[in-house]
Amino acid sequence: MPRPDHLQFGALVHGSGGHIAGWRHPRANPDGELDIDFHVRLARLLEDAGFTALFVADVVAVWGHQLDSLHRTTRADYLEPITLLAALAPQTSRIGLVATATTSYNEPYNLARKFASLDHISGGRAGWNVVTSVVPLEAANFGRAEHFGHAERYARAAEFVDVVKGLWDSNADGALIRDKASGVYIDPARRFHLDHRGEHFTVAGPLNLARPPQGHPVLFQAGASPTGRAFAARVGEVIFTAPVSVAEAVDYRTRLDADVTAAGRDPGDVRVWPILTPIVADTDAEAAEILAELGSLIHDDVLRRLVQDNFGDEDFSDLDLDEPLPDFGTATNRSQSRRAGLLALARGEQLTLRQLALRFSARADTVGAATTVADRIAAVWATGAVDGFNVSFPYLPEQAERFTAEVLPILADRGLFRPPTGTTLREQLGLERAA
Amino acid sequence: MPRPDHLQFGALVHGSGGHIAGWRHPRANPDGELDIDFHVRLARLLEDAGFTALFVADVVAVWGHQLDSLHRTTRADYLEPITLLAALAPQTSRIGLVATATTSYNEPYNLARKFASLDHISGGRAGWNVVTSVVPLEAANFGRAEHFGHAERYARAAEFVDVVKGLWDSNADGALIRDKASGVYIDPARRFHLDHRGEHFTVAGPLNLARPPQGHPVLFQAGASPTGRAFAARVGEVIFTAPVSVAEAVDYRTRLDADVTAAGRDPGDVRVWPILTPIVADTDAEAAEILAELGSLIHDDVLRRLVQDNFGDEDFSDLDLDEPLPDFGTATNRSQSRRAGLLALARGEQLTLRQLALRFSARADTVGAATTVADRIAAVWATGAVDGFNVSFPYLPEQAERFTAEVLPILADRGLFRPPTGTTLREQLGLERAA
Ligand SMILES: Cc1cc2nc3c(=O)[nH]c(=O)nc-3n(C[C@H](O)[C@H](O)[C@H](O)COP(=O)(O)O)c2cc1C
Ligand SMILES: Cc1cc2nc3c(=O)[nH]c(=O)nc-3n(C[C@H](O)[C@H](O)[C@H](O)COP(=O)(O)O)c2cc1C
Repeated sequence: MPRPDHLQFGALVHGSGGHIAGWRHPRANPDGELDIDFHVRLARLLEDAGFTALFVADVVAVWGHQLDSLHRTTRADYLEPITLLAALAPQTSRIGLVATATTSYNEPYNLARKFASLDHISGGRAGWNVVTSVVPLEAANFGRAEHFGHAERYARAAEFVDVVKGLWDSNADGALIRDKASGVYIDPARRFHLDHRGEHFTVAGPLNLARPPQGHPVLFQAGASPTGRAFAARVGEVIFTAPVSVAEAVDYRTRLDADVTAAGRDPGDVRVWPILTPIVADTDAEAAEILAELGSLIHDDVLRRLVQDNFGDEDFSDLDLDEPLPDFGTATNRSQSRRAGLLALARGEQLTLRQLALRFSARADTVGAATTVADRIAAVWATGAVDGFNVSFPYLPEQAERFTAEVLPILADRGLFRPPTGTTLREQLGLERAA
Repeated sequence: MPRPDHLQFGALVHGSGGHIAGWRHPRANPDGELDIDFHVRLARLLEDAGFTALFVADVVAVWGHQLDSLHRTTRADYLEPITLLAALAPQTSRIGLVATATTSYNEPYNLARKFASLDHISGGRAGWNVVTSVVPLEAANFGRAEHFGHAERYARAAEFVDVVKGLWDSNADGALIRDKASGVYIDPARRFHLDHRGEHFTVAGPLNLARPPQGHPVLFQAGASPTGRAFAARVGEVIFTAPVSVAEAVDYRTRLDADVTAAGRDPGDVRVWPILTPIVADTDAEAAEILAELGSLIHDDVLRRLVQDNFGDEDFSDLDLDEPLPDFGTATNRSQSRRAGLLALARGEQLTLRQLALRFSARADTVGAATTVADRIAAVWATGAVDGFNVSFPYLPEQAERFTAEVLPILADRGLFRPPTGTTLREQLGLERAA
């Protein structure tokens, strides 16, 4: 299907903000994460403003290896995504509900049920961000010394997704008859055993739940390495990216479209949403001050960890924050793309560890008055490389309030944005229902 | 703590009723299972009437081995319990939310998070019905030819529960500080690695979520065999039972109290809730008619399967429904207690397969006018063997409406029932918070 001719927005769900020190900002709500009423209010604000989806990131461990710096961040304490989104479902009416879940530490039958249940409960608004897990501590919560290797993770993920789709399809549309007179509740001719026997999973099926309203909940993916991008090209419907420049975003889109075509799919069936971390204030100068203030609220231990945890296996504890990053290689079993991006950034501009961490903690490219932020968004949209943005508000609720009240109306006036139409998430994204 | 001096009630969550043909009753809602609005209305009705908890049963497969008869029942199509209860949490304010989850086909880290999340979202109303799985088809959805053996299932369950409790405790009470000034979000001295290394599980921890409001969500259990009862005695706080007679209920309580004491716990800390399947009508005769009508709505294939699926591994397809049950032995890897109960019933009264199936499909002991049902409940309560009942309404919403409007007021007038006080489920049950 053709891509929508206007921008769409998803929002990362945070309790107090996406910036690592966002919770400390004077106008942030530090207690939001476990406060379901706070999540409901924010979900409704974003839904009313025309956001297409809420997206909950997830890691099945505390989000970083060492407890030394972690206790200074919100990344050690968050609700399980599907549970949270299920609670939001009856409190909202249109916005999509996208939960992250890993294929490395779940069983396909359990996940297929959960997403199908969320899709039924929400009337067809569920999405699944398929990840393979990268944070080292996750493995240790599931009896493993370390994650499966990078290639094996993705091979497993590919089979996992096939099984889940097979389970969703193990009850055909219209299987639920519920005819009191004949006593037939489900049409046995529309229910199938799956009998999947693969390299990683053996699953009989059928699923114990009618086909989801969307056929298949929408699949989100964020593969960035060549293996990850090939996987995204095969199964992803909305791709999250984190490009460090517009040039990189354009390059990613070109490669992805080629990969999607090579996988036998139509590039028109895939949406790309890079991350956006806007700071909106009355003037550009005030917004820049907020960004600097957020940076100053990051403890030195956290700055060091920010780079180290996203980099690889080296120990950074003896490195001086105000010296340039030493010359490390690119190989890692962690996120290859993230390490490579950090290395390129550090070398290209001869950044110190502190400067690199500050860069990494916040993108400075959409910081300004509402018109500045809108201009920037419009410029990226004009490249044709993106279909929307995955917005992470640095601190909450203020930045969500300002973005929806000030930036979206400007984009709407320029004809670049309008609230989505359709009831299911799939319809809102302009994506075909799975046959 | 002392047991409450009055009755408490939990309700099984069903979309159209707990009787196997309940959905076909003329006044049943056949479409309730996937209708979240229906679940919300029913939850509020029960909460307002003073029910203590909602309980969602679960099997991780279609609920019966053969699709031949299953398509005539609702047991092939239901929402995943935690997802459903999370959706109900913000729509209710006081009632407990008890989800079934199996220790055989889950990972402790994932379940610990889900129940902790549900407990946070609901303000301390979560409960976990710990099961080890008995329906054969479940194994095949998780790469196994058959379930772990009966003893191994329970050994695994015991370790599983220990790990989950350890994860809940891996953040001490008050660990969440969220102090903007000092930048300390979580007190590192109140967060612990678990480093569990056991026979079945290796789990590092800590959990990525603050300790649940209840400390530990309440543990429900329904072990019935000696092994199952020993497990219930060690970890169960509310025990579901399905006695076939009052004598059996009294006997179970006596044995359980002894087991609980032997396990080093106080019998006052354990509640016993047998199942109750009331049919309330204007007169006893009318209620009996409804029961007969429900029986007549069960297809012969379903009658046969009802016994076979709860019995063991024998094939019943050639058995005549109107002949007495052949003389089978008691050994099985399925639910031993259930098989033994069925066998005893069939032999004791020389029942045909049809009669046995009809008995099994509905208990006839609380069928009548509201006073009859209240009398019967009062008589069981008077034995001291029970603390409340786990109510399965045969068809919905009518029987829930009649029970709450007609039976509960009689019990309240007699001083046997009053709505629970307290905010958390644990408080409502009169159970101590885990230290
Ligand atoms: C916007 C965005 C959000 C992501 N969210 C998660 C997440 O919630 N959990 C997770 O384990 N990984 C997450 N990732 C990581 C990706 O799943 C993936 O592992 C990463 O982009 C590295 O790609 P690669 O595996 O192809 O090297 C996210 C990535 C991006 C760009
Ligand atoms: C009221 C009640 C509800 C039960 N609910 C479930 C359930 O939802 N899922 C399940 O797998 N088993 C369920 N069971 C089965 C028990 O967990 C247990 O396996 C059964 O009572 C047999 O006990 P045994 O394992 O000690 O032989 C339930 C049992 C009772 C009495």
